[in-house]
Amino acid sequence: MKFISLGEIMGRLSTIDYEKILHSKRFDMNFGGAEANVSVTMANLGVEKSAFISALPDNDLGNSVIRYLKCNNVVTDHIVKTEGRLGLYFVETGFSQRNSTVIYDRKDSAIAKADPEIFNFEEIFKDYTWFHISGITPAVSDNALRLTKKAMEAAKKSGLKISLDLNYREKLWDFQKARDILSELAEYADMCIGIEPLNLPGADGTDIKNGLSRNNPSLEEMDRVFHEMEKKFGIKIIARTARKSISSNRNALKGFLYINGKTIETDWEEFDILDRVGGGDSFAAGLIYAVNHFEDPEQIIEFALSCSILKHTIRGDAGTFTHNEVEKYLKEGMDIKR
Amino acid sequence: MKFISLGEIMGRLSTIDYEKILHSKRFDMNFGGAEANVSVTMANLGVEKSAFISALPDNDLGNSVIRYLKCNNVVTDHIVKTEGRLGLYFVETGFSQRNSTVIYDRKDSAIAKADPEIFNFEEIFKDYTWFHISGITPAVSDNALRLTKKAMEAAKKSGLKISLDLNYREKLWDFQKARDILSELAEYADMCIGIEPLNLPGADGTDIKNGLSRNNPSLEEMDRVFHEMEKKFGIKIIARTARKSISSNRNALKGFLYINGKTIETDWEEFDILDRVGGGDSFAAGLIYAVNHFEDPEQIIEFALSCSILKHTIRGDAGTFTHNEVEKYLKEGMDIKR
Amino acid sequence: MKFISLGEIMGRLSTIDYEKILHSKRFDMNFGGAEANVSVTMANLGVEKSAFISALPDNDLGNSVIRYLKCNNVVTDHIVKTEGRLGLYFVETGFSQRNSTVIYDRKDSAIAKADPEIFNFEEIFKDYTWFHISGITPAVSDNALRLTKKAMEAAKKSGLKISLDLNYREKLWDFQKARDILSELAEYADMCIGIEPLNLPGADGTDIKNGLSRNNPSLEEMDRVFHEMEKKFGIKIIARTARKSISSNRNALKGFLYINGKTIETDWEEFDILDRVGGGDSFAAGLIYAVNHFEDPEQIIEFALSCSILKHTIRGDAGTFTHNEVEKYLKEGMDIKR
Amino acid sequence: MKFISLGEIMGRLSTIDYEKILHSKRFDMNFGGAEANVSVTMANLGVEKSAFISALPDNDLGNSVIRYLKCNNVVTDHIVKTEGRLGLYFVETGFSQRNSTVIYDRKDSAIAKADPEIFNFEEIFKDYTWFHISGITPAVSDNALRLTKKAMEAAKKSGLKISLDLNYREKLWDFQKARDILSELAEYADMCIGIEPLNLPGADGTDIKNGLSRNNPSLEEMDRVFHEMEKKFGIKIIARTARKSISSNRNALKGFLYINGKTIETDWEEFDILDRVGGGDSFAAGLIYAVNHFEDPEQIIEFALSCSILKHTIRGDAGTFTHNEVEKYLKEGMDIKR
Amino acid sequence: MKFISLGEIMGRLSTIDYEKILHSKRFDMNFGGAEANVSVTMANLGVEKSAFISALPDNDLGNSVIRYLKCNNVVTDHIVKTEGRLGLYFVETGFSQRNSTVIYDRKDSAIAKADPEIFNFEEIFKDYTWFHISGITPAVSDNALRLTKKAMEAAKKSGLKISLDLNYREKLWDFQKARDILSELAEYADMCIGIEPLNLPGADGTDIKNGLSRNNPSLEEMDRVFHEMEKKFGIKIIARTARKSISSNRNALKGFLYINGKTIETDWEEFDILDRVGGGDSFAAGLIYAVNHFEDPEQIIEFALSCSILKHTIRGDAGTFTHNEVEKYLKEGMDIKR
Amino acid sequence: MKFISLGEIMGRLSTIDYEKILHSKRFDMNFGGAEANVSVTMANLGVEKSAFISALPDNDLGNSVIRYLKCNNVVTDHIVKTEGRLGLYFVETGFSQRNSTVIYDRKDSAIAKADPEIFNFEEIFKDYTWFHISGITPAVSDNALRLTKKAMEAAKKSGLKISLDLNYREKLWDFQKARDILSELAEYADMCIGIEPLNLPGADGTDIKNGLSRNNPSLEEMDRVFHEMEKKFGIKIIARTARKSISSNRNALKGFLYINGKTIETDWEEFDILDRVGGGDSFAAGLIYAVNHFEDPEQIIEFALSCSILKHTIRGDAGTFTHNEVEKYLKEGMDIKR
Repeated sequence: MKFISLGEIMGRLSTIDYEKILHSKRFDMNFGGAEANVSVTMANLGVEKSAFISALPDNDLGNSVIRYLKCNNVVTDHIVKTEGRLGLYFVETGFSQRNSTVIYDRKDSAIAKADPEIFNFEEIFKDYTWFHISGITPAVSDNALRLTKKAMEAAKKSGLKISLDLNYREKLWDFQKARDILSELAEYADMCIGIEPLNLPGADGTDIKNGLSRNNPSLEEMDRVFHEMEKKFGIKIIARTARKSISSNRNALKGFLYINGKTIETDWEEFDILDRVGGGDSFAAGLIYAVNHFEDPEQIIEFALSCSILKHTIRGDAGTFTHNEVEKYLKEGMDIKR
Repeated sequence: MKFISLGEIMGRLSTIDYEKILHSKRFDMNFGGAEANVSVTMANLGVEKSAFISALPDNDLGNSVIRYLKCNNVVTDHIVKTEGRLGLYFVETGFSQRNSTVIYDRKDSAIAKADPEIFNFEEIFKDYTWFHISGITPAVSDNALRLTKKAMEAAKKSGLKISLDLNYREKLWDFQKARDILSELAEYADMCIGIEPLNLPGADGTDIKNGLSRNNPSLEEMDRVFHEMEKKFGIKIIARTARKSISSNRNALKGFLYINGKTIETDWEEFDILDRVGGGDSFAAGLIYAVNHFEDPEQIIEFALSCSILKHTIRGDAGTFTHNEVEKYLKEGMDIKR
Repeated sequence: MKFISLGEIMGRLSTIDYEKILHSKRFDMNFGGAEANVSVTMANLGVEKSAFISALPDNDLGNSVIRYLKCNNVVTDHIVKTEGRLGLYFVETGFSQRNSTVIYDRKDSAIAKADPEIFNFEEIFKDYTWFHISGITPAVSDNALRLTKKAMEAAKKSGLKISLDLNYREKLWDFQKARDILSELAEYADMCIGIEPLNLPGADGTDIKNGLSRNNPSLEEMDRVFHEMEKKFGIKIIARTARKSISSNRNALKGFLYINGKTIETDWEEFDILDRVGGGDSFAAGLIYAVNHFEDPEQIIEFALSCSILKHTIRGDAGTFTHNEVEKYLKEGMDIKR
Repeated sequence: MKFISLGEIMGRLSTIDYEKILHSKRFDMNFGGAEANVSVTMANLGVEKSAFISALPDNDLGNSVIRYLKCNNVVTDHIVKTEGRLGLYFVETGFSQRNSTVIYDRKDSAIAKADPEIFNFEEIFKDYTWFHISGITPAVSDNALRLTKKAMEAAKKSGLKISLDLNYREKLWDFQKARDILSELAEYADMCIGIEPLNLPGADGTDIKNGLSRNNPSLEEMDRVFHEMEKKFGIKIIARTARKSISSNRNALKGFLYINGKTIETDWEEFDILDRVGGGDSFAAGLIYAVNHFEDPEQIIEFALSCSILKHTIRGDAGTFTHNEVEKYLKEGMDIKR
Repeated sequence: MKFISLGEIMGRLSTIDYEKILHSKRFDMNFGGAEANVSVTMANLGVEKSAFISALPDNDLGNSVIRYLKCNNVVTDHIVKTEGRLGLYFVETGFSQRNSTVIYDRKDSAIAKADPEIFNFEEIFKDYTWFHISGITPAVSDNALRLTKKAMEAAKKSGLKISLDLNYREKLWDFQKARDILSELAEYADMCIGIEPLNLPGADGTDIKNGLSRNNPSLEEMDRVFHEMEKKFGIKIIARTARKSISSNRNALKGFLYINGKTIETDWEEFDILDRVGGGDSFAAGLIYAVNHFEDPEQIIEFALSCSILKHTIRGDAGTFTHNEVEKYLKEGMDIKR
Repeated sequence: MKFISLGEIMGRLSTIDYEKILHSKRFDMNFGGAEANVSVTMANLGVEKSAFISALPDNDLGNSVIRYLKCNNVVTDHIVKTEGRLGLYFVETGFSQRNSTVIYDRKDSAIAKADPEIFNFEEIFKDYTWFHISGITPAVSDNALRLTKKAMEAAKKSGLKISLDLNYREKLWDFQKARDILSELAEYADMCIGIEPLNLPGADGTDIKNGLSRNNPSLEEMDRVFHEMEKKFGIKIIARTARKSISSNRNALKGFLYINGKTIETDWEEFDILDRVGGGDSFAAGLIYAVNHFEDPEQIIEFALSCSILKHTIRGDAGTFTHNEVEKYLKEGMDIKR
């Protein structure tokens, strides 16, 4: 499996030891972005090749991002150095009843300002079998939207399988605009993670997803939505997680998977959170990986969910565990081996 | 609302990462004291003016305390630089079954040795509407007891509302002596936080609070005590919290509020603790703030309890959240917004 | 009580703040080993004298180990400086669903290579009343096995009471070999911690412990096994803990104690884990200490279990709490005293 | 003396312990900007009132800047919360032969985008006696240039003394453009720090400063330039430093001062550098402060130079020493007092 | 050689990385005091036995001091746990032109309040051959002065050699009072470090040391003073260092030694300073050690000076180098051995 | 230029902030080894391809080494995972007069135990043009000596240029044995760094290098030795540095280069040291790089010397500067650009 994704990778400046941004004099810097996280997680899981396409500023912040990707075995040959800045965001990790908060500072990043023509996708895609993108990238800028479309078209033409993680970000764009654009992009997808934002009008014209339970939908509800999604967009594999927030540091997740025309679900799994960022991206990576390595739907969704949960226990945006480590977690308990 | 309080502010030297004092080579230093914490929390909540009266040593430790208060928008104009030292205390934060422990080193502090005559309260109080003090300050030294009385008298005379947080510290004085003195001081109070130490003899001469359930009193019990307190001391608003210690890092709190002659209670709320110190002071601040901003008793006690719980999730002695942040916590869940 | 133990003490290099080894650029170094941990815990509990016998390299790593033992009041007079290296191991502390992992690097340590003749046990043991060793030491090397036998024989001859913590380490040796050797060594023991690896064949020739519930044995099962152990090896006091792994950071423990021919058990106690390493050694230390200070079996096993649980809340391999602190924990709750 | 300045204040993200940006996973955050640094240093030196005018984003980064200014006793009443971002820059502190490097990320900051009309300078300046601005602010954006002119005009009209620190930044604008604009602004100044960029054409039409020794000009050269500056712009007080870079961590400084129509110079003073940023701003602050507190030109320039040197020994952008501490440094040696 | 000293040991709270106290939120804690430092350095150099007599508070700060002394192989059997507090002092380490500063907070410490009768010196001194005390201890309190006299008398009576490090602290007492008391105590001394404060009146009644060059006295001057000291007090061995402060981080030292009626001096040696505290105490320890191990005066003073210089390169109050390491430094250069 | 080297890469555990190993509870871990450092420096300088051949343990320490190499753009395809351990060494960085010290713990590492047959050098070398090895590798073990010979023979046969950094380590082997073996290996070299250990007997049979000034040889001396080396071993390019140790933190270096039959030297350059380890390896890398990119001998040796000096100002074993950064250092001064 030769995997490639396209998107923005940002610098995350996180406060330390649950400090508030208001009081912080020191920040941890790490790098991440929805698609980059998937590429890094795929590379660590052990695919033959995992690449990431983006634009980065031509300075030591850009170089530092490249180093991060390289050490994770991600192919960086398709990253272009351009004018813009490195997008940043500040994260204050919540604790118990105190929420996490984010201050975005990502405008005018290299990828947001990049001319789509600097990437020769036909050439790039020759050596890959699977393309992944998220619904965040088209929201970044007009340029980035054009870039997304261009890439998806090219990937389709080059015969790659395409996965799309819908991933709505309310701070970036309007919900209805997001639904319109992502519905257009969903036509290219072979696999979809998440169900919003997409236009899925029912008989009465209102979206059938409106009013759907967000945190705890039933298997029946999900099955109906997934079937409609396949009917409307032709997507064969769809998955999502549902999340319960017990506190800022403790959540529960369950997974839903639609494949071969059938929907299955996992049990809820509860866990403590070391670093929540990238939990969804590791679910996406685990899913793509599992679909390419296993047949059994149960095994696929359990693997994907485990990738997400394990990511929550690792600092940084991406899952740096191997296929074997995920399997070991699925088979064995949680005690030290000596 | 123009708030002012009087008391001692100390240096807290805390071990790091749950280290024991016995093993610690490095300590975090922050500043706090019962009334200072209330002034800082009030300023962050957003009152028009919040001040703190105290005495501090004339060196860079004293200057550092001033900086701390100023950055929190607390008016420091009434702080006097004197001879004594900065009171200190060492804290070892407990973990799970291991208790927190405290070593006090607060004798002979600037405020403990301060001559009450250095403060011209009539002049100071001209510009304020609410005065707050705790039961710790009169316990600090004989000077401090005289200072407390002088301040409460002056506040009364100047027409300020007065709140008193009883706050018994067994390491500072004898319980019966505390009851006698605080019963005298309680006469000045318009609002009281806590119920001990106060003399509240029943028909048989023994204190009606003796034997009262400390960790889980019933609404009826509390109602009876609160009525007696109003009857004896003329205090119109009384509140307290009850606390369950699940472990050193996990507690539950509930609040009781007596207002307009009626007692109400909240549900128990359970939470993890990042820093327990100042949890009670943020309850006091939240209560004073809420009484001055809301009418509804339910809203008042929920706001005060939330201030206390949120304080437990922030390092440092005081609550550095705004009115809006507390409201947001009360209305929304605990998930990251992106 | 004059306590002495023999074994290896290693350098533990632990990742910080739940970091993975894969990402770690900084490691905490502390020192520990099964028997050294018991000696340190005994010294802190407050025995008259607590010593540790070992071999260490003649460099500043060896000197640093000596400093560690000395500051804990452990007698280091019987430690010999030799050629080998300081055994090391790397620990990645797990978090929630992510397991702890260990990389051993302990081959060819000073003690593993030490000639048993460098220790004059007859001379050493003159001043002690209790000797402790674990089942790890004979597994370290052939030299160490000879050393173990020599020490146990000498201790017996010198009239010391002997405790043996069986402590099977699957990374060090084969299970059946371990059973054979430890069954031989168990003959010397007056007290035994744990039940494996020992040969305890039943009527049908298979070991009666095969198939025994590991994490939650019944009192009846344990009683039967303990009686067989006394019958076969003549051991009068036997104890063990059972452990439930709720997550990498949260476990529950219960204790079993066989004494005076009867078996008792404690309730399960659940707790968060700050540092799991040495939890078993503090149980052993607590048990040896309690057997020498209390009569009541309930009090003995509760004390031992509390030592183990408190150790889990302290960073480092050993329990640095006093007799009084353990008693206080047993009597009082878990709230800060001010 | 009631001091006020106007400009941008940014977040500085510095690598730690001489780490390269390329390798850094953690950054120290502090706040600074040319004029803000002068206001902070003035407040610490002890002027009656020191204020800073700017625009800041309405989030916790902006709030954190306010806290920083407040704790330094800077009046923040004239700071407006607007839309833009907090300007940032990354600093890699050089070591010995390795240069310091800076990556700017300050575009589209709140102040760069602020509409000059949001500040009512006539109202603001009523309560101040001295206005300070640097040549960096007009270079930040077109808005900021308009803002600068508007402020200088208003300050003049309100009767404040005006100081201008020329402070050319080659990464922000073209040298000749800077000369043209700053020559225009210099007309308003009563005091000027530095000599470039200004148009100062000689008889032959070329600028008389072209070719002037930058690092080690003679007293005669400086005297001639200063006289020309007074002649052309009417500036009565002019000062500058010359700097020798022995290594990234060790520099030497000397000061030149033109006052009452005469130029004097100090000796070279050599020192190690803890944090170079803000060294020039503390010179400016020291100069403005000294001119308002001393008569003797020697005393003025020695005080200003000492402020600059002491700033180099303190982490952060501003000098947090008092008038007394500078005097003490000038009078006493450098040994610990016990 | 069996060495013992008496004095106060305090907690030193130092700012980190050249931070100012004014800005510090974190402090390093280590322990030291003039005589304790000598005992620790002697133990590390390798004397047969090194002990320290003092009083400490009965809490985990006092216990932590004991651990520090024990790990350095100092005998703590003669330390008494009493009521008082642990004396503290805050240190801000200077950098280049910025001075180090100290805030003392040592009043009412355990040793300052200790009743001299709690120490049975006759019993204690039985097992020692050399007693050391400094001129700081008698300045601590009236109790401590009585204690000093009692100890020196007892040491004399028990036949120990006595060394006295004069060590004037201007923050503790008046110079003339110090001269009077130390002149009295000097009568007991066999060895003296330093020359002030002592009464050494010349023919004209004024002290012959008045006006003596402090930082760079000539060999002749020193020789004259030393002879007078032997004449007046009968002290056979006298030594001192002279110090040049190049900057807060770079000093030069030279040593003077009077022995066998002759004075010699060393060259100036220049060095960078990692931690200046205890530099004089390591000189004292090196001198006492050398006088007991070498014959050659040159070797003695070079050894003592090297101990002092090496101490300046080690964090903490005491020299933790061995006899061999000092010798190696004296013989070899300063390059890494691989 | 396609560069490849072979050798051992170890984990370096360094104390922090000039702490002694004796006192260290925390260590920084980084990776390095003579040849690995050259490969990393070459990759950063910007050669087309830079690879490193070695054996590493199959655990997360080995994986972490791979990540380190990959992020530096070093090709790791030829690294084999085997049984042995990761060699380690502990470094205590000296300060001023206190020496750096090293404790090696490198026995039985993966590469020391690796069977030479696991590397197919003919295959590996097909894609490279230059092979580098140091005199440390043959000293590691008998296996490693066989491996070294096998690799050098294969490199010769495959037509690669070969550089040999003699690099004598006295802790690894005997000087005469080293001379014999390295004299044999030197026959393969096209370039040689250093002059010892090699057999270079003069007319009288004694080695002509015996007695040569080590720290400050004259140009004439060096010229004579270099000519003899070319005569005896046929090496065309020879270079070395001479080093003066002003203190542990301050050294001076000068370079000598023999090329085209002539010897040239640079001036002494003095600098502060942040991290000395790898200073020689960056000289080797700079030399190899320069010989392949420049013609002018002056430019070659200045470039190589600058690489070495800049390495001393960067933490870690290797030079992470680009060709451009070295050029910039050679052309410009050392002041911050803003």
